[in-house]
Amino acid sequence: MNVEFVNPFLEAVINVLGTMASTEASPKPPFVKSDDRAMGDVTGVCGMVGEKAKGSLAISFTEEAILSIASRMLGEEISSMDETIADVVGEITNIVVGGTKRALVEQGYTFDMAIPSTVIGKDHSIFHRTDGPIMIVPFETDAGKFFVEVCFEK
Amino acid sequence: MNVEFVNPFLEAVINVLGTMASTEASPKPPFVKSDDRAMGDVTGVCGMVGEKAKGSLAISFTEEAILSIASRMLGEEISSMDETIADVVGEITNIVVGGTKRALVEQGYTFDMAIPSTVIGKDHSIFHRTDGPIMIVPFETDAGKFFVEVCFEK
Repeated sequence: MNVEFVNPFLEAVINVLGTMASTEASPKPPFVKSDDRAMGDVTGVCGMVGEKAKGSLAISFTEEAILSIASRMLGEEISSMDETIADVVGEITNIVVGGTKRALVEQGYTFDMAIPSTVIGKDHSIFHRTDGPIMIVPFETDAGKFFVEVCFEK
Repeated sequence: MNVEFVNPFLEAVINVLGTMASTEASPKPPFVKSDDRAMGDVTGVCGMVGEKAKGSLAISFTEEAILSIASRMLGEEISSMDETIADVVGEITNIVVGGTKRALVEQGYTFDMAIPSTVIGKDHSIFHRTDGPIMIVPFETDAGKFFVEVCFEK
């Protein structure tokens, strides 16, 4: 997997959380995923398919982190992991995928449109339908942790 | 949601299970989904985006059903909900989406390529990022139950 696919994604994540939730997110050293357990309690996932490359992206938030982030985004206290949280995570994922695509177009990669899905559940596992290794980038914020998964193959 | 989107999907599901797993699947009366709890223990989900319509499809299998179906497809006993099951569900979802697209092209609808994701977990909830109602079609087989979710908007 080429790092050129990872950086636009991380920048989009940092951007969205900064502008929409006033939350500063700091990326920590990445590692290669060794099992399929989602790292968080709610995960937004979206496939990206283009002529030259295809991949799958996921953003997995701990309950603690997403409840704070959603409360900041919506300007009201959100305290349960329900449809509102699914909407927020879907929206974050959608904007991140959009930002990533725009950055990759400048590098000569175009991707089809796609719709993210959101999964809520303790101990859920997400399987990306791509052949490449999956890179995990942990993020820390003052609201708690979340994890970005990127998997691309050319 | 127009029923023209539902029938090709159901036919593709019946077709795939019949040809790949020698499993006869009988659709039962559909109902509109009232909460977001996945009906099964493993779910394949895939967005479909086109110029004239967009939607999201999911196939959610009970553990009992998918272990039998996977064992039949692979010709060996599969007894745990691991990556092999994720592969099988991803493959079934992929083929079903492909078959549905081909049928819908004949009706004048084209869709971009997409990659399905698979989720394993007891009590997981899947949220489709579309505005329309979600129709559930329960299926019965001699292997157990599974559920098809279709959500489309024009």
